[in-house]
Amino acid sequence: MKLASIRYRNRDSIAAEIAPGELVDIASLRVDGAPSDMIEVIRGGEALRQRVAAALAKARSDTSIARIPAADVTWHPPVRPGKICAVAMNNSASNERKISAPDHPAFFLKPSSCLVGHREPIRVRRYYGSVHPEPELAAVIGVKTRDVAAAQALDAIYGYAIFDDITGNGMRAEDMFHYYAVYAKKDKPNETERVEQHLSYAARYKGTDTFGVLGPWLVTRDEVGNPDDLAVQCRMGGELIADDSTRYYNYKVAEVVSFISQFHTLHPGDVISFGTAFKPGATRKSIHMANFQSVEGPVEITIAGLGTQQSPVVIEDKEIGAWRLR
Amino acid sequence: MKLASIRYRNRDSIAAEIAPGELVDIASLRVDGAPSDMIEVIRGGEALRQRVAAALAKARSDTSIARIPAADVTWHPPVRPGKICAVAMNNSASNERKISAPDHPAFFLKPSSCLVGHREPIRVRRYYGSVHPEPELAAVIGVKTRDVAAAQALDAIYGYAIFDDITGNGMRAEDMFHYYAVYAKKDKPNETERVEQHLSYAARYKGTDTFGVLGPWLVTRDEVGNPDDLAVQCRMGGELIADDSTRYYNYKVAEVVSFISQFHTLHPGDVISFGTAFKPGATRKSIHMANFQSVEGPVEITIAGLGTQQSPVVIEDKEIGAWRLR
Repeated sequence: MKLASIRYRNRDSIAAEIAPGELVDIASLRVDGAPSDMIEVIRGGEALRQRVAAALAKARSDTSIARIPAADVTWHPPVRPGKICAVAMNNSASNERKISAPDHPAFFLKPSSCLVGHREPIRVRRYYGSVHPEPELAAVIGVKTRDVAAAQALDAIYGYAIFDDITGNGMRAEDMFHYYAVYAKKDKPNETERVEQHLSYAARYKGTDTFGVLGPWLVTRDEVGNPDDLAVQCRMGGELIADDSTRYYNYKVAEVVSFISQFHTLHPGDVISFGTAFKPGATRKSIHMANFQSVEGPVEITIAGLGTQQSPVVIEDKEIGAWRLR
Repeated sequence: MKLASIRYRNRDSIAAEIAPGELVDIASLRVDGAPSDMIEVIRGGEALRQRVAAALAKARSDTSIARIPAADVTWHPPVRPGKICAVAMNNSASNERKISAPDHPAFFLKPSSCLVGHREPIRVRRYYGSVHPEPELAAVIGVKTRDVAAAQALDAIYGYAIFDDITGNGMRAEDMFHYYAVYAKKDKPNETERVEQHLSYAARYKGTDTFGVLGPWLVTRDEVGNPDDLAVQCRMGGELIADDSTRYYNYKVAEVVSFISQFHTLHPGDVISFGTAFKPGATRKSIHMANFQSVEGPVEITIAGLGTQQSPVVIEDKEIGAWRLR
């Protein structure tokens, strides 16, 4: 089932695709206990999913149930997650660029406040510097999960969605520290020593408003084949800039969910994004050249079985305001 | 006013301090329009705050209003924020350790799911490696805020709380990449070049479950003097390990809020933490030696006007589970 959070005729609702280009409001299916909030739908689990899917199948031949033209709706992010965990440098194509790297998934957080939906504009201000798209497969967690083994980890997932992990690599280069960190000495824990170290912080370059596009659909996992083998394409202004597959992720979907769950409790609606599918397309342009400041949008991301996400890009000619007190 | 989210006699509620060691349930004050959720209280703004404060003042001489002994309640984090933004290396005491650093606040995110309340245990597993406390001043945002100038930024704050930004510096050292990043060439944007770079990712070492302690109180800002001049102490197992003040922050509270708001929209209930107050106490022990794996708790943080936060530390003798598929 393909679920969406939409606004239609000034009303927000949860909808499902009933035919190509057509949706129905879940409420119009009159399923017992079907909530009007996506996280509550997710909490309803497999039992509720089956009831809604059965009602949707019946509705295909029921002309009394209103159909909503997909072209006429505003798309919200399908879910407003409590947290978004995104894996860094998980594409095996980046391995040859690594001098030293962790031997486990490393991940960062994006705030729910940065999310926009399909067809909502990505707004980039001049002072953000270079910003580019990163096409990724994302999973939406179905059940509260802690310490799940890899073999069971896919069961924690309610469904999948396209995620554009928009990245300001201009700000990335600005938010780095080269410094002497203080650590307790290994042999004398009551004394400290200085260790030269590099740290960087991602909240600005990964979490700025509109730097995450989720959707259009949350596709329930029964409809998605092997999440570790889905084709991913990204176009910028119509030109193919990434032609890749989730099969090239270093860490598989189940491995990432299992690993994260041994540190963070995952809650229904939480989003995990598995890393950028960035292998260049036929014209050899890459996502790293697709700087929104100079290359025209829209961004278009297609993942097999998950649909196509389109995002217009709006450049705001704006300088940063007075943030110093004097 | 000192507000708290508590559980008492199996019921969650919002409470206020009525006398030292005594609280009252806000609902028992019968204030028109007083909600039972802290974010809704915050959304009520200054008008609601004044009505509750007036009712609380009256209740001091009203024996019909039940008083709750502070010793008998379970403390939740006063608020469940949409996001937590925390500033890195904002203490001027760390400046002499910087080789190169941004000339603006750099910040990271912590997930709401990591939060625990006053007196809830900090749970540290053996495989987390070294973990230490970081005593910080935090602000709770009152109104939806974007692009606020520094001169107006304090008006965006509803109140202040003590925040322990618990940090796993063992995991920090593991989640670093040294690699060749791909950037578009400045002069030839249709070509890319490789730039040697260090990146690190904070979601694990800053966001693991129980790595954020907020509270006990959310103190409304009318009761807090100058947020840029508050004494901060941290004790570990009774020993003073930090004796510092918010006056030594490089970037002032208003500057941080203003800066962040020019990238992220801030929402009511969002938490901003301003950096670690870590100057060692009289015994010259430092927070960096206060590794929970070997130094006994509890952690105790006091900030002038905000109360004292106590956190027992529980070590879990546990190895990481099977997160690889084979």
